[in-house]
Amino acid sequence: MCRWLSYIGDPVYLEKLVFEPRHSLVDQSLHAEQAKTPTNGDGFGIGWYDDRPTPGLYREILPAWNDPNLRSLAHHIQSGLFFAHVRASTGTHTSRSNCHPFAHDKYLFMHNGQIGDYPLVRRSLEAMIDDEHYAARQGSTDSELIFCLMLTLGLVEDPHRAIRRTIEIVENEMQTRGATAPFRFTACLSNGNSICAIRHASDDKPPSLYWRKRNGHVIIVSEPLDTDADSWAAVAPNHTLHVDGNLVVTEDATLAA
Amino acid sequence: MCRWLSYIGDPVYLEKLVFEPRHSLVDQSLHAEQAKTPTNGDGFGIGWYDDRPTPGLYREILPAWNDPNLRSLAHHIQSGLFFAHVRASTGTHTSRSNCHPFAHDKYLFMHNGQIGDYPLVRRSLEAMIDDEHYAARQGSTDSELIFCLMLTLGLVEDPHRAIRRTIEIVENEMQTRGATAPFRFTACLSNGNSICAIRHASDDKPPSLYWRKRNGHVIIVSEPLDTDADSWAAVAPNHTLHVDGNLVVTEDATLAA
Amino acid sequence: MCRWLSYIGDPVYLEKLVFEPRHSLVDQSLHAEQAKTPTNGDGFGIGWYDDRPTPGLYREILPAWNDPNLRSLAHHIQSGLFFAHVRASTGTHTSRSNCHPFAHDKYLFMHNGQIGDYPLVRRSLEAMIDDEHYAARQGSTDSELIFCLMLTLGLVEDPHRAIRRTIEIVENEMQTRGATAPFRFTACLSNGNSICAIRHASDDKPPSLYWRKRNGHVIIVSEPLDTDADSWAAVAPNHTLHVDGNLVVTEDATLAA
Amino acid sequence: MCRWLSYIGDPVYLEKLVFEPRHSLVDQSLHAEQAKTPTNGDGFGIGWYDDRPTPGLYREILPAWNDPNLRSLAHHIQSGLFFAHVRASTGTHTSRSNCHPFAHDKYLFMHNGQIGDYPLVRRSLEAMIDDEHYAARQGSTDSELIFCLMLTLGLVEDPHRAIRRTIEIVENEMQTRGATAPFRFTACLSNGNSICAIRHASDDKPPSLYWRKRNGHVIIVSEPLDTDADSWAAVAPNHTLHVDGNLVVTEDATLAA
Repeated sequence: MCRWLSYIGDPVYLEKLVFEPRHSLVDQSLHAEQAKTPTNGDGFGIGWYDDRPTPGLYREILPAWNDPNLRSLAHHIQSGLFFAHVRASTGTHTSRSNCHPFAHDKYLFMHNGQIGDYPLVRRSLEAMIDDEHYAARQGSTDSELIFCLMLTLGLVEDPHRAIRRTIEIVENEMQTRGATAPFRFTACLSNGNSICAIRHASDDKPPSLYWRKRNGHVIIVSEPLDTDADSWAAVAPNHTLHVDGNLVVTEDATLAA
Repeated sequence: MCRWLSYIGDPVYLEKLVFEPRHSLVDQSLHAEQAKTPTNGDGFGIGWYDDRPTPGLYREILPAWNDPNLRSLAHHIQSGLFFAHVRASTGTHTSRSNCHPFAHDKYLFMHNGQIGDYPLVRRSLEAMIDDEHYAARQGSTDSELIFCLMLTLGLVEDPHRAIRRTIEIVENEMQTRGATAPFRFTACLSNGNSICAIRHASDDKPPSLYWRKRNGHVIIVSEPLDTDADSWAAVAPNHTLHVDGNLVVTEDATLAA
Repeated sequence: MCRWLSYIGDPVYLEKLVFEPRHSLVDQSLHAEQAKTPTNGDGFGIGWYDDRPTPGLYREILPAWNDPNLRSLAHHIQSGLFFAHVRASTGTHTSRSNCHPFAHDKYLFMHNGQIGDYPLVRRSLEAMIDDEHYAARQGSTDSELIFCLMLTLGLVEDPHRAIRRTIEIVENEMQTRGATAPFRFTACLSNGNSICAIRHASDDKPPSLYWRKRNGHVIIVSEPLDTDADSWAAVAPNHTLHVDGNLVVTEDATLAA
Repeated sequence: MCRWLSYIGDPVYLEKLVFEPRHSLVDQSLHAEQAKTPTNGDGFGIGWYDDRPTPGLYREILPAWNDPNLRSLAHHIQSGLFFAHVRASTGTHTSRSNCHPFAHDKYLFMHNGQIGDYPLVRRSLEAMIDDEHYAARQGSTDSELIFCLMLTLGLVEDPHRAIRRTIEIVENEMQTRGATAPFRFTACLSNGNSICAIRHASDDKPPSLYWRKRNGHVIIVSEPLDTDADSWAAVAPNHTLHVDGNLVVTEDATLAA
């Protein structure tokens, strides 16, 4: 399991969320409170949008609490839309290629959860990836695989449909191959203009997901960044949260069907 | 392209070959003379056999010339059969999972060369890997893929046949998919008792390979470790070199057929 | 604060203590129970004696729980006297040079604790290091500094005196420069034949230290490796524990004077 | 020896100099032409000024040619004044703390060269550092030591005087302690508004240094970035080059006295 956050709104320095809050993402890398494990020290990553057509990416295998580069970058990089992720491996190796976020063209993706009994279904799911994204796969995680599947299944054309189809296909394959562990999928996607967050599980225990809108921005987080608990709303299980460039927030139940 | 060496014989400290010779493997990481590139600084690895049923493995993403751990390990680890490899990436990322040697059960494998136009054939070749080794694949290199194919094609039962079949399948697939770059395959395998080295290419430019037998040991190398040029014999193109536990050396042309 | 263990006795594979016990040192890197912080993820190291005149050393900046090299080395390296250490930085950077154990000639040293208000006294203490060890200093930690002081103050000739003198000098300098934070010093030294462990603090809170003698070996640990609590004896505050090559254990109060 | 570049002028993406030129700094990390060694693979760093009061810093122990983070950062970070450095160690360890540039407050410093027989003079030179900068020293290089000395000797108040005094003191100490190897010092300093580059040696072999002014910027480099050789001017031995915020370039001979 992992912890992540995403931000959309007026440009801010990344440190504003990654380091400064009492329960910042870096604090969560040492002391997560709503995760299965308190320590998320198996690498981390940030992805951010700026004037360039594709997002910036900085991923490292050290723990986030322990990287002076991250501290300097988060102090100097401003963005109006960014992702940050601290990783707790569920089995695959710690390498930069296995760290989130994953980027393709203008898209960013990150994930907290896992495909249950991943080795059972890895082969058949990878076989469904189209040639372009198959060739671009660099790591070995289920998370990158899910991203490749969404890209294959039309993320560019119809993201909500691609997400639904991906979940269906993963769960279908898990059932066919006799996976007994659940699919847990609390994830975040962006095209640089809007953010789509998903809180899903094949059982009744989707990883936690919260959001908060304040003047000029929306933050989506695995767990609240501060003790002002009332200010954070939980995303309902099997719901998606969509935040557009005008900060209009829509929560819907398409995944719950 | 990469540089590697393997050793079989009376137990020696690894530094004897990795550091001490004038043109040691670590020297070759900075100044290779018979490779396409002089610098082999994209990670390295050592694998060695001892009293344990499976080989030891130490792989790192730093350049070999720059790792105090390697210096200490090579000073302290003795072995009567070991591999060492310095890597020059042909495109895939620098991660430990992409560093040689690769290990499976009691087997070690390392490689210098490449599957030409790898992205064209990666998918269809990976699809031929059997379930066990598919699930165990951690990196993204063509080298690890070749090892998985050999394991799938009966490396345990009949290594020479598995090697031949793997080469056939790779070259067949390259032809089918229209690869124009050559297959270069100078590689080394061991089961802990004997060593099999292969010097092969689909064109007439297989990477260099030499060996030398002296009292109590045989060394196989990408390029000679010292200036005593006459003491090293070149393996002929498309030949395999087999060294058994009694240091009996057999070179044969089964691949040249 | 950090966690460490040392072993003397019949040769064993390092994994026997580093990985296998329920509350192994690697488990303590994630879940220390008697330390100020549960996470010791700022690098680690192992040092071991074998047939070579100087000890082997493997130190890495990744968390110990996350390093496949450590797993393989601990499976393959046997030793009759070794140290292992997982680090929680008290301020200095995470680099291999700052990881324990530190080695000089045939000596190994590791430490859990800190010089309170280290910046206040660093300069004057470093000035007391003799030329040889001053030139050899590679990191910036108080721990390496203490080791350099002990070497300067006659560790080779009279280790107990060198330890006492070092503690005196450090505490004297702290007092002179107005340090208010305490000196905490739970440390371990070896010359390859015997082990000397120290549990000391300038206040009444020396970090925890335990030992156990069983057939053929003695283990000294920051905290017990298993739940057989009665089998572990606590070293008294401001005492030293000495274990010689015949596994004769002597605890004395020379530091308590 | 190392290779470096600095830039002042209209804001550009760092990749414009670090990656794009035919003989970019990253190319120089593999194939330096005017250095003692062609390979500069012992870490690297970038430092850049933006709207923040202190510069950004990204330093890494991998070779520069091999770091996807550097590629992404250089594609996304724009600056009107930045430094970049690729390192070839002259003896000290490869750690981030030993990578250039070094930063203090608003200052950046980087260096190519060495204090000859550094171990002979390290102690006495470190003793001259004032308390503030002594406490802040994190690595063990002669380069960081020189920076600390310049800060101690009034870099903030009178940079040219501080540079001259530092060179005098270093050379004086080398002479006193019987150093026979030369002092080589081709370095670069900035306060965020202007750049001062120094080409100095105690013998007649100062490392190479070039500069070029074109519309809207000045570049200073260890060796030319392209084959337009005539467009680059060599800085004379024992001269300093000063470029102010209006791109007025002054070369003077104060060090040659």
